[in-house]
Amino acid sequence: MAIVIIRQDNKTQEWKNALLAVDSSIEVYAYEEDYDSNDIDMALIWKHPEGSLTQFPNLKCIASNGAGVDFIFEDKTAPIHLPITRIVDSYLAADMSEHVLALILAYLKNIEHYKVDQFKKIWKPIQYKRIADFNIGILGLGTLGQALANDLVKFGFKVQGWSNSRKKIDNVESFEGQAELSKFLSTTEVLVCLLPLTDETYGILNKKLFKQLPKGAYVINVARGGHLVDNDLIEMLDNEHLSGASLDVYHKEPLVKHHPFWEHSKVHMTPHYASVSDTKFVVPQILENYRRLQKNEPLLNLVSKSKGY
Amino acid sequence: MAIVIIRQDNKTQEWKNALLAVDSSIEVYAYEEDYDSNDIDMALIWKHPEGSLTQFPNLKCIASNGAGVDFIFEDKTAPIHLPITRIVDSYLAADMSEHVLALILAYLKNIEHYKVDQFKKIWKPIQYKRIADFNIGILGLGTLGQALANDLVKFGFKVQGWSNSRKKIDNVESFEGQAELSKFLSTTEVLVCLLPLTDETYGILNKKLFKQLPKGAYVINVARGGHLVDNDLIEMLDNEHLSGASLDVYHKEPLVKHHPFWEHSKVHMTPHYASVSDTKFVVPQILENYRRLQKNEPLLNLVSKSKGY
Repeated sequence: MAIVIIRQDNKTQEWKNALLAVDSSIEVYAYEEDYDSNDIDMALIWKHPEGSLTQFPNLKCIASNGAGVDFIFEDKTAPIHLPITRIVDSYLAADMSEHVLALILAYLKNIEHYKVDQFKKIWKPIQYKRIADFNIGILGLGTLGQALANDLVKFGFKVQGWSNSRKKIDNVESFEGQAELSKFLSTTEVLVCLLPLTDETYGILNKKLFKQLPKGAYVINVARGGHLVDNDLIEMLDNEHLSGASLDVYHKEPLVKHHPFWEHSKVHMTPHYASVSDTKFVVPQILENYRRLQKNEPLLNLVSKSKGY
Repeated sequence: MAIVIIRQDNKTQEWKNALLAVDSSIEVYAYEEDYDSNDIDMALIWKHPEGSLTQFPNLKCIASNGAGVDFIFEDKTAPIHLPITRIVDSYLAADMSEHVLALILAYLKNIEHYKVDQFKKIWKPIQYKRIADFNIGILGLGTLGQALANDLVKFGFKVQGWSNSRKKIDNVESFEGQAELSKFLSTTEVLVCLLPLTDETYGILNKKLFKQLPKGAYVINVARGGHLVDNDLIEMLDNEHLSGASLDVYHKEPLVKHHPFWEHSKVHMTPHYASVSDTKFVVPQILENYRRLQKNEPLLNLVSKSKGY
């Protein structure tokens, strides 16, 4: 019985140490180390190499090391008949919420414009916008979306949200399903995408959707690069239907140097760092599920395979 | 009995029209128009030309057209024995508060750094900071400072404030006078200056003060350029005692092109536009005081000449 950590960044050893620091009795290996594949019953993974999950005959659980699991379903060789778990980290939600709030305020107060003006030594006041005047629409009211909705209400924004099923959140108007998407979009002045990436949501941020937003709307994508049709965004910025966009996620990361987003004056980029799992908060969740796995108890934060999140 | 509007931007006519739109019965002149100087009993001014207040023998009141009055005391020819009033605009306070919040969040989430990185096509995640981990210290707990303190508490920040006399604000530690300034500074991680500009506060943001902040502190000046000793700030940024600064105000505005702030990587500039008086909210205050002046009733928002604000 052992955990294998599989990821392609340089953080395998860090996570191994973090797990062992809390429970030194467990057996845990970095993917690249020597071990008996038969011993592995849990794979703790983040953007693993495709095919790497096929070599553990006794695997009992695939544990995503983050909130997202889309990368697991993208690997067609992954044994997704096994239980899949993900991280639900309250800090992840709080961090995401703070990042989005920073992006919205930067938009209202023209912070990025002024930074560019400073670069060019231009002194040019631009009329600011006020929190009270803006209707924020959140696409996706899962853990992250709900936390953001609550925070934005607290900060004085008008907030509405859209999701597959209607949600009950104080002071947040909730829209449900395809039938209510247009109505939701028609009154959304700042659109924040926090949807999970599934077959249904891939490419949802496209021309057809953008056209249903009021003229001058602002778009924030902090979910996944796959949600956005890049060329559609650029077209709608260039024809001035949209006034700008803040992006934290991209189809390929790091974003390739020749991508037009880098030089687009209305696109504000952050390098996929809105919210990062902190070992301190995540390790106990992983260990708890590993303990449950050994005792055949129900696992926490199981992913629904039909929904894909 | 008439009002004269004196200011050096191109907004005299706009303010004249705004006053007349609400009360067409009053007599109001732009400074550059023809009128009998003897008729003027109120001067509505904003950064007037020095000496321009001496030509009204029957002047009864100097009304600042904004929250600040420092420019009146700087004009040594101004008849400051007369009652001086200023604008107290709740929007001014709310706008200032939102602007400062945007600057603080931009700092915590590295928004300006990422904008510069985008310019240079650099993909480099930087560890963000969290609202809960930061102690914001507000220099000056007047109308603007108190509004900001309340908002920051609501947003989850730890907040402390310093002013001449102790203030009672829920969840805000209040420090008083010179004796408690060092203690206040020693635990302030983000310093926001919202002091009035007086002889006592001129140059208060200097090397001696900065050195009392913890290493890595961040400085925000949204009050007046005169509060800051520019070279001291640059020295403390370059020796890495301070991690950065956001400035909205400068000694000379617009800031001259050769000033080192423009090109300093740790200075983030906005062009004195944190908070702008809106005629809609300000006009009724001016007219109310003008009415009181005619009836010899006590004026609203009188400035204390001993305090200078």
